[in-house]
Amino acid sequence: MKHVVIVGGGFAGLNAAKVLGNRKNVRVTLVDRLNHHLFQPLLYQVAMAALSPAEIAVPIRHILAKYRNITVLQDEVIDVDRERRRVVATECTLHYDYLILACGVKHTYFGHEEWEEYAPGLKTIEQATEIRRRVLTAFEAAERSGEPARQRRHLTFVIVGGGPTGVELAGAIGEMSHHTLTRDFRNINPRLARIILIEAGPRILPSFSEKMAVKAATDLEKLGVQVRTSSPVTGIDSEGVQIGPERLEAGAILWAAGVQAAPLGKKLGAETDAIGRIVVAADLSIKNHPEIFVAGDQACFIHSRPSPLPGLAPVALQQGRFIARNILAEIAGRNRRPFHYLDKGQLAASAAARRSSNWAACALRVSGPGLSGWSSISIILSASKTNSLSPCTGPGHFSVSGAAPD
Amino acid sequence: MKHVVIVGGGFAGLNAAKVLGNRKNVRVTLVDRLNHHLFQPLLYQVAMAALSPAEIAVPIRHILAKYRNITVLQDEVIDVDRERRRVVATECTLHYDYLILACGVKHTYFGHEEWEEYAPGLKTIEQATEIRRRVLTAFEAAERSGEPARQRRHLTFVIVGGGPTGVELAGAIGEMSHHTLTRDFRNINPRLARIILIEAGPRILPSFSEKMAVKAATDLEKLGVQVRTSSPVTGIDSEGVQIGPERLEAGAILWAAGVQAAPLGKKLGAETDAIGRIVVAADLSIKNHPEIFVAGDQACFIHSRPSPLPGLAPVALQQGRFIARNILAEIAGRNRRPFHYLDKGQLAASAAARRSSNWAACALRVSGPGLSGWSSISIILSASKTNSLSPCTGPGHFSVSGAAPD
Repeated sequence: MKHVVIVGGGFAGLNAAKVLGNRKNVRVTLVDRLNHHLFQPLLYQVAMAALSPAEIAVPIRHILAKYRNITVLQDEVIDVDRERRRVVATECTLHYDYLILACGVKHTYFGHEEWEEYAPGLKTIEQATEIRRRVLTAFEAAERSGEPARQRRHLTFVIVGGGPTGVELAGAIGEMSHHTLTRDFRNINPRLARIILIEAGPRILPSFSEKMAVKAATDLEKLGVQVRTSSPVTGIDSEGVQIGPERLEAGAILWAAGVQAAPLGKKLGAETDAIGRIVVAADLSIKNHPEIFVAGDQACFIHSRPSPLPGLAPVALQQGRFIARNILAEIAGRNRRPFHYLDKGQLAASAAARRSSNWAACALRVSGPGLSGWSSISIILSASKTNSLSPCTGPGHFSVSGAAPD
Repeated sequence: MKHVVIVGGGFAGLNAAKVLGNRKNVRVTLVDRLNHHLFQPLLYQVAMAALSPAEIAVPIRHILAKYRNITVLQDEVIDVDRERRRVVATECTLHYDYLILACGVKHTYFGHEEWEEYAPGLKTIEQATEIRRRVLTAFEAAERSGEPARQRRHLTFVIVGGGPTGVELAGAIGEMSHHTLTRDFRNINPRLARIILIEAGPRILPSFSEKMAVKAATDLEKLGVQVRTSSPVTGIDSEGVQIGPERLEAGAILWAAGVQAAPLGKKLGAETDAIGRIVVAADLSIKNHPEIFVAGDQACFIHSRPSPLPGLAPVALQQGRFIARNILAEIAGRNRRPFHYLDKGQLAASAAARRSSNWAACALRVSGPGLSGWSSISIILSASKTNSLSPCTGPGHFSVSGAAPD
């Protein structure tokens, strides 16, 4: 009986576990710091109060309960002993025959970790509800204040980082102030909120085609979002953001600017790239250790394209399943195969974010706790208003635009 | 144009505001520390992960958005200047012609405020999610631990206080361990969880009839809940509870033992009772200040019964509406009338708590954000298993048992 240890209950880890579930000659232990799987593509909707945490977070042990050969442990893995094949967690040590690392990424502040307090990132439920609190509190503070200058400051929202998360957040705040909140206040007009999306590079959505990026920028501007490219942030404090000589006073600052792989990767001694992802072989194993695999955002896979595969849910999901199938093949005496990513295209939902949130809520409810129907699609919301998608009845309403990442 | 200031957006404050909404010759400002109204009778369901916070918390300004004469402010009221008729909040001062105080109650630890850290109460969303975290974490810790003695400690849940909240919590943990979690663990049997409900007085549910209390105790014991009466707690720390010479090691300790009225009442200089509630006249105003009213849990109303009206949602709701109608009558030149509580009976839902949670979720969804259809019913869940209520289709399934509080 081979023991497979999976570290991380995201898209990669969970899907690896499902393939191994109830199979003969193998038992599985999945370890995660948290007790829930998170449908991260919709996390910004929780931050914008359009979804509840429970709509995108499902207990891992509930998802895997039907697989009697899988044990779920909530614990934090702190080291891997490659020679003795042991995973060391805070409260227990596990021996493995196969190890799948799928620990994901977290935000990085590029050496300015003190900025985190003033500009939270968006990777966990706690961060999402904190962002929600800050944005709503800013509207409340503006309503209370009689002074136009203070109101202007409270109603200025700065989002740092023009990738998909930053674009989604900016679009969602734009929708919230233009639609959701319009009738709720007496002393302020929420439509006057200033939403400023700051990107250090020359354009937003660098992993999308230029055409898509231009379209998204135009759509954001229609929602009152100011897009500033080539604007590296040089300082952040409790009151605002510094961009070179310019000072932006803000009611809330949100961080969506960069990620770094989980630190566990460095302890493996394997090669890592600039953001700490582990460079993997064609079968997703690491050098000299065919029994150790890395999947999802934590892996740097450079065998099929000029640039590494992007950190998207479909990549993680396919890698998790692929590793599990290779392990089953090997146990059955067959050879391993190399991984190929099947790019089904990224979904760019052309719809007002408010409508999309309704849609999203329905879609999740329709698909249920396993989320399997949807987890193969990465939802990138460009917050455009030229929508073909209005009533909320589920998946059928979507058209997939062929915007593959570079 | 008379200005009515309402402090508190609970059942009393919110219903007073609704009656005054869009009426001539009156404008209203409702002030609350928080931005949401809370459907408190179901808060324990959030603590037990059966409901999401958003299912029982609705933004106050959203509920009142359609009343153009009502302004909602999120701020904390710290004083009342009765002579100059001013309410002093942290960030603003409001002049009033009429003042309605409806600030509710909070938990009290009877002089042992240091116990709060180890045994959180259940009055806010934050407390509910913290209790949820502690209970689920205890099951996780037990699953990780190999030692039977530690497992036993982790799986011991102590609830202090045998009123409705304590009974509901104990019943819900019993249901959770007997039903919801049974298949999810591998190293522990959640059914073996020890749930201990501790009451200082001679019986649980002192505000209910003796017959009801005996029935509830029997039902709780069927769910594996040990009920201990006449057991005053003498100490609480991070590891457990002391009851005289006896020590109970526990994985989570929950507090449901006593309440105290909001401190603002004492600043009015009016007569207060033992738990700080303001003694009100027959029209719910305070002595020498007919323009100041108190409603809901914060009021001590002793005109109709030997004991004060209990702190229940229907009492608060009726008082809030009553005060608003009296104010409108007075503005129109008519006389005030005295308050009479119409006791519609307390709802004792005879159903397994797990089923009830489904019901509750449905019922709330059916009734929508205003919750008006349900807010007139106080839901007391006796966690009995002799249910006549199985499928989840809404309000029609309920029978109201005539258990009026003493």
